[in-house]
Amino acid sequence: MGWTRNFGDAQFPRSRHYEAMESADNSTDLIYFETEPSRYVHWKLSFDGPVATLAMDVQEDRGLRPGYVLKLNSYDLGVDIELADAIQRIRFDHPEVRVLVLKSAKDRVFCSGANIFMLGSSTHGFKVNFCKYTNETRLYLEDLAAESGVGTICAIQGSCAGGGYELALACERILLVDDGSATVSLPETPLLGVLPGTGGLTRVVDKRKVRRDLADVFSTVAEGVRGKRAEEWRLVDRAIPRSRFAEELEAEIAALVERSSGMDGGTADSTDGRNEPAQPSSSTGSLLPGLGGQYEENRIQHRFVTLEIDADARVATLVVRGPSADEPTEVEAMRARGADLWALRAFRELDDVLLHLRFNHPTIGVVVVKTVGDPQMVRAVDHALFDAASEDRFAREVIWHMKRVLRRMDVTARSFFALIEPGSCFAGSLFELALASDRSYMLDDPDQPVKIGLSPLNLGELPTHSGWSRLQVRFHGEPDRLEAARSLETLLDPEEALDAGLVTFTPDDIDWEDEVRIAIEERASLSPDALTGMEANLRFPGPETMATKIFGRLSAWQNWIFIRPNSTGETGALSLYGKPARPEFDWRRT
Amino acid sequence: MGWTRNFGDAQFPRSRHYEAMESADNSTDLIYFETEPSRYVHWKLSFDGPVATLAMDVQEDRGLRPGYVLKLNSYDLGVDIELADAIQRIRFDHPEVRVLVLKSAKDRVFCSGANIFMLGSSTHGFKVNFCKYTNETRLYLEDLAAESGVGTICAIQGSCAGGGYELALACERILLVDDGSATVSLPETPLLGVLPGTGGLTRVVDKRKVRRDLADVFSTVAEGVRGKRAEEWRLVDRAIPRSRFAEELEAEIAALVERSSGMDGGTADSTDGRNEPAQPSSSTGSLLPGLGGQYEENRIQHRFVTLEIDADARVATLVVRGPSADEPTEVEAMRARGADLWALRAFRELDDVLLHLRFNHPTIGVVVVKTVGDPQMVRAVDHALFDAASEDRFAREVIWHMKRVLRRMDVTARSFFALIEPGSCFAGSLFELALASDRSYMLDDPDQPVKIGLSPLNLGELPTHSGWSRLQVRFHGEPDRLEAARSLETLLDPEEALDAGLVTFTPDDIDWEDEVRIAIEERASLSPDALTGMEANLRFPGPETMATKIFGRLSAWQNWIFIRPNSTGETGALSLYGKPARPEFDWRRT
Repeated sequence: MGWTRNFGDAQFPRSRHYEAMESADNSTDLIYFETEPSRYVHWKLSFDGPVATLAMDVQEDRGLRPGYVLKLNSYDLGVDIELADAIQRIRFDHPEVRVLVLKSAKDRVFCSGANIFMLGSSTHGFKVNFCKYTNETRLYLEDLAAESGVGTICAIQGSCAGGGYELALACERILLVDDGSATVSLPETPLLGVLPGTGGLTRVVDKRKVRRDLADVFSTVAEGVRGKRAEEWRLVDRAIPRSRFAEELEAEIAALVERSSGMDGGTADSTDGRNEPAQPSSSTGSLLPGLGGQYEENRIQHRFVTLEIDADARVATLVVRGPSADEPTEVEAMRARGADLWALRAFRELDDVLLHLRFNHPTIGVVVVKTVGDPQMVRAVDHALFDAASEDRFAREVIWHMKRVLRRMDVTARSFFALIEPGSCFAGSLFELALASDRSYMLDDPDQPVKIGLSPLNLGELPTHSGWSRLQVRFHGEPDRLEAARSLETLLDPEEALDAGLVTFTPDDIDWEDEVRIAIEERASLSPDALTGMEANLRFPGPETMATKIFGRLSAWQNWIFIRPNSTGETGALSLYGKPARPEFDWRRT
Repeated sequence: MGWTRNFGDAQFPRSRHYEAMESADNSTDLIYFETEPSRYVHWKLSFDGPVATLAMDVQEDRGLRPGYVLKLNSYDLGVDIELADAIQRIRFDHPEVRVLVLKSAKDRVFCSGANIFMLGSSTHGFKVNFCKYTNETRLYLEDLAAESGVGTICAIQGSCAGGGYELALACERILLVDDGSATVSLPETPLLGVLPGTGGLTRVVDKRKVRRDLADVFSTVAEGVRGKRAEEWRLVDRAIPRSRFAEELEAEIAALVERSSGMDGGTADSTDGRNEPAQPSSSTGSLLPGLGGQYEENRIQHRFVTLEIDADARVATLVVRGPSADEPTEVEAMRARGADLWALRAFRELDDVLLHLRFNHPTIGVVVVKTVGDPQMVRAVDHALFDAASEDRFAREVIWHMKRVLRRMDVTARSFFALIEPGSCFAGSLFELALASDRSYMLDDPDQPVKIGLSPLNLGELPTHSGWSRLQVRFHGEPDRLEAARSLETLLDPEEALDAGLVTFTPDDIDWEDEVRIAIEERASLSPDALTGMEANLRFPGPETMATKIFGRLSAWQNWIFIRPNSTGETGALSLYGKPARPEFDWRRT
């Protein structure tokens, strides 16, 4: 039973079945990433005025692939795909929401974390990418609060373990029922020999600021911590007796609704129409209808985004088409365009393609990034969005969505080479694709002129996980160039672009083909692991945030532990979980 | 041929040979960490007024263990042990030095990095600990410049590859001869399928602020970059024609001598005697004579520090004895005491024991940390040092040395549990041992009173690698407690210590034995890998620095890559280096 069951109509199309292709989790089913609330299997999303509620009710026998049972609200990637979808929809389709409550629809258990048997039976690459996606979704929750001004409350009335507690940690408020039984715990280290790698260790000490010795105790006690001790140690905000839990939860919700009424995620202007969704643009009445992409063995085709796979060369070509001349630039027209607005749709398609790359095309090492269109039109769209964002919630959400997609690219473990060729439109928000790439090549041929350019969106609207814009990252050793880039009004030809430090190389027409081909072939020939580690270090100079710590440090340690025999070897703790045999460790510390 | 050859007299004692014990690198020779210039094999340290020169001249056949040849100034741990020793000695024994020049004594090669055959034939644990020690030594160079005000210049007149360039990156100035041949390079990724993991990737983008796309190119080009391009890309400060190299180097040295004459690493007071070494205290005339410790199979015995090994339980007990009543507190007397000053000697011994733990006792998982002495005497010593440091270079160097040793403890991959028992002296600088530990237990028994206390050294003089004091790390969620700790004048009994948040648990005399025993046993039973990753994440909340990035992020990725089949498997790139076969990669990206 594969995920494809969710794609039964034209809106969420079912892909062709790839008989010959092995997907990331060793089954022949590919994984798809689109869904919508009526198709949710594991979550119940409901609305009551300004309050949205997401109730977790994982269906045991509806895992993403056979071989494990999702007992006790344990989750797999399919559960998280629904959660990510729900958060996006709250932002786009339900701007009236001021508070999101996460709870369990099951008695006595909130969530028992990532399913161990799923993890134990997954490839290393799948485990790593599963954790990365889950981390991105946890950050969605924090972005929702920080940007859209939606307060998030986790209401725990049962056991909340491992990834379940990591989900709670991503909420602003954590309420725990104090009934002598409900607990929060991070049992990964003592029970499984792995880490709470979905932000758990980082958020405990960096976000909740649990004292490090108490965090040490907490992270080694399999049975967890309950009641007042959990509150005293700052693991939860409040431990509340069961008899008063419902009432206190209501009071917390009311307080956050009250607080959030003065916020709208950017400006407090009450005329910004933040509670009015844009005009429905599709039959679903949603700003996020199914994309209707075509998925073939060596090609993914969306309206604006295409991915072509050269499996033998281990190279994919990603093409993003820019906006056309009829793209609206006034707020009302943008809202009327809704789901079909280029800036929203093209980046949704890009997001989808990045996820397919990660999970369904693991052997692709190099992604050649191209654009097609008119750079001035991208800049016009960016300017319009930037202006609209000062007064319009929808426009802001579109920019924030762009930001999330570009961040997804930043932490995708593939080499990205941008090719800036005639007919391309690497400007503004699409120039971020070149800035996010590991390097860029721009053709310098007077007979085939090509230009790049910036827009206000390059100047801080689309920050990386470190909080810096990609221009800041690029020029942190060259403040003069950063300053110069800030005031760039015109498009730049190859020589100007090279002088400005905005592109890596500008081969002429004689050298172009060989230079680019050799660079791509060489890159595709290097150790995939060394490249992953190298890129993870070079892409994030400058400041560190909780997100960069999670993706850079915690995840790296988790990756290491996931392939140590002490966790996944024959006698490793993860492999033997649930079996009568006890793990046998190689005791050497490193 | 083992390292023990360097311990031929009483000053640098030779240990008993441990017939039955397997050391970290699978030979039966233990590794020792003490040396002094007359015993150096691989470096020539010379002095000319304010200028010290370290010339690298690695002896091919004098590696730390058999099985590899240290060609082309490639290095192993033994080479780095000498380098670390030299830097410490410049600080303590040669305060007249204002500039340190690193160069090669060999023609046409500066340094070709860590020896690949040594790496390829080492255990995973040894590789990780070798890189960690090398990282610490690179940071020694940066501390030397930042604290002691000694300018560091790397003069490269040949190929400078991998770890060789990482050594250069740790210097303030990098001069490269521009002769069409000399290069700097990081060939780890393209040639070996591993990372430049000794700070290379981090320092390229974070310290030298090389643009990330250029850093990407540089890190994948095995042959490296030379001449003006190296300068333009910021990989070196200057590329200088061979004909002018000597002259320009002299000018650079003169400029740094001039600059450093206004600095002394803390205060610019010219009356602080910074150029006068303390009175010689031993026959070597050095402040850093051999420690003369006794190394037995299950015990290391120094004057102030003892380590007792319980190999079966995988637990070691570390005991640090505090100062006695005759410890000097006046500057002149402290200088006269020199090498025998408790604060210097006890921390040198602690450093030695930590290194033995890492390399020679890999299966020890838990270190029980104890102290013996009078807490008021530790505080008196700390106060005296703190006061003296405002006017005396020697006192400052002693504190900076303490800082380095405590940082070594912070990044040692063992669980530290502090036991605060009657007769202990966890106060001031020794309370840092409790703060550095993963948790602490303090006996609460009115019949056997025990107290802890702080000193000025706890308030920022001994910062962790993040730049925060251990009290800041501990209380970053509790600013009131940090404030309260800052003004603590008195010693605290267990109840007060618990209230102040300074200890984790305070069992009473009835519970103590069982509670402590069970905690240690439980800890020693957990997966060593999961604990290493957990501790690396929990110990460093708060800000990130280049050092925390190197130890937390770069090293974690390097550890991961070191055990991937693509590097160290049978057909991995590291395993096959120098052999005719080409590596075969599993192409799946993660």
